[in-house]
Amino acid sequence: MAKKGRVFSGARPTGRQHLGNYLGAMLNYVALQEDYDCIYCIVDVHALTTLETTLDLRQNTYEMALDWLAVGIRPEESIVFVQSHVPQVMELHTYLSMVTPLGKLTDLPTFKEKAREQPHNVNYGLVGYPVLMTADIVLYKADLVPVGVDQAPHLEFARETVRSFNHRYNTQVLIEPQMKVTQVPKVIGIDGQQKMSKSLNNHIELAATPEETRQRVMQMVTDPQRIRRSDPGNPDVCNVFSMHKIFSSPEQVEMVNTECRRAGIGCVDCKKLFAENLNHHLQPFRQRREEISQNPDFVWDVLKDGAKRASQIAEATMVEVRQAIGLP
Amino acid sequence: MAKKGRVFSGARPTGRQHLGNYLGAMLNYVALQEDYDCIYCIVDVHALTTLETTLDLRQNTYEMALDWLAVGIRPEESIVFVQSHVPQVMELHTYLSMVTPLGKLTDLPTFKEKAREQPHNVNYGLVGYPVLMTADIVLYKADLVPVGVDQAPHLEFARETVRSFNHRYNTQVLIEPQMKVTQVPKVIGIDGQQKMSKSLNNHIELAATPEETRQRVMQMVTDPQRIRRSDPGNPDVCNVFSMHKIFSSPEQVEMVNTECRRAGIGCVDCKKLFAENLNHHLQPFRQRREEISQNPDFVWDVLKDGAKRASQIAEATMVEVRQAIGLP
Repeated sequence: MAKKGRVFSGARPTGRQHLGNYLGAMLNYVALQEDYDCIYCIVDVHALTTLETTLDLRQNTYEMALDWLAVGIRPEESIVFVQSHVPQVMELHTYLSMVTPLGKLTDLPTFKEKAREQPHNVNYGLVGYPVLMTADIVLYKADLVPVGVDQAPHLEFARETVRSFNHRYNTQVLIEPQMKVTQVPKVIGIDGQQKMSKSLNNHIELAATPEETRQRVMQMVTDPQRIRRSDPGNPDVCNVFSMHKIFSSPEQVEMVNTECRRAGIGCVDCKKLFAENLNHHLQPFRQRREEISQNPDFVWDVLKDGAKRASQIAEATMVEVRQAIGLP
Repeated sequence: MAKKGRVFSGARPTGRQHLGNYLGAMLNYVALQEDYDCIYCIVDVHALTTLETTLDLRQNTYEMALDWLAVGIRPEESIVFVQSHVPQVMELHTYLSMVTPLGKLTDLPTFKEKAREQPHNVNYGLVGYPVLMTADIVLYKADLVPVGVDQAPHLEFARETVRSFNHRYNTQVLIEPQMKVTQVPKVIGIDGQQKMSKSLNNHIELAATPEETRQRVMQMVTDPQRIRRSDPGNPDVCNVFSMHKIFSSPEQVEMVNTECRRAGIGCVDCKKLFAENLNHHLQPFRQRREEISQNPDFVWDVLKDGAKRASQIAEATMVEVRQAIGLP
């Protein structure tokens, strides 16, 4: 059956994925495969703009790809590859950089934020991050890019850059990507406060063992007003309850909602129930992950094959781009 | 005989070369072949940072390469190629951009100057010009770069960038290029005032016909104090005399020097003599140029072969670079 178009999405190689990645991106990646030709890219080049060390880059790439495959990204259908394996993206990035005003880049809120976060390392590559992101997308002539609302300005930047290039060289060779805004739940970490993130160490890894998962869940911060077991709790402000709504049955959600409010269930039991459901939910993923990792070459072979297929699209685009520019 | 090392030099594709290019760069390019393995690159990607139009890019590349070959650059020995034909340079540029502080680039005098010249087009690529230049040099592991004194800061920038990269990734893969400062005469245009340059239209093309050359020489501004034929002139301030010193015999130079000062020779005759000597000097070049251009494919074949040989060096470097960074 003909698909509706081509989707591109990239993610930095952050190693083993956590519940936040799962609910925020991975499930969406899997679902998009039904209707679109999907290209999923592990953007290691982007990672270099902010990484303090590259010692884990290779392992993190492997672990993330493994999680993607285990969750249901189908490499025989979708293209899964590593950004740096298709260097044409850096060639296109260079050409796009010449139709991109410097001021436009330094004015972007995300640049200002990063410059604040790493004032000792405001490198030239960091400024060009949105240009490289544009190159990622348009190199593969993606029709659609799934983005959260907060990333909308970056996609608008990409669209403007495409228009600048096409106008500058009087061509139609680059395609303006469309946004596919995805509604994703904001997943809070086990600290009950901040967005789940590996760097904050408030995450729950998908690939953890059931026992590790249980321990992690037991550390979750619940309603801070509920001090004693006998205090009634408020599920509306409890992160564990949010998780129940995703991973537990309607009956269990209803039970927790009622019993918590009248101190009929304690946080310990409530968490145990969630941990059990989460482990049950992740069981097929973990089994598949285990199977795949029996043969470590498999992941690298998938990435290699993905790079090969991506390269074909990329080189075809670059032939057009070089011609459009008028290069000798 | 073993050469002393590898030289890299790049020049923007400015089409037919003129006397300024000849005396300032081309003769040096030819001479360096005696002692070094030489790589001469037509830097079309750099040209994109400032070009108003790319319509002439291909033709300008052809004409410049043709002049290079006609003047004595030996393609069976030296590598002559077009920058964009070896896209690895843009890959390396991207990696180097991540070890280059933005402020260092925007502080460079050449950037500030260009930003003044084209305030409507301060593009991101323009800022990165020295980074791309660094990539040009180190991609080919050049030992030496011939530079005029005014370009010394750029080479120092390249050396610093190499140190930053090697330090950042704890490697020795990139080589710090050395400067080979070349003493070149400052060639003044026919206006007698500004540096000879195509954009100022004060140039004399090497490939012009003898008659065109004569006409161009006859337009040359001489000693502005010498109004009438009967006025004595001052060769020390006369651009035609500077040219005599390069292209005429010692006897002729002595004669002009003496006769001009006592109005024994007029400017017209003096210029005719120079034009004759210049045409005589350029005769072998023009003949060789004519021969080569009988087969227009020859120049493109040379550039193609050069790109192939350059690619081999480039890819070998990039294999090391990717490994040094720790890319997957």
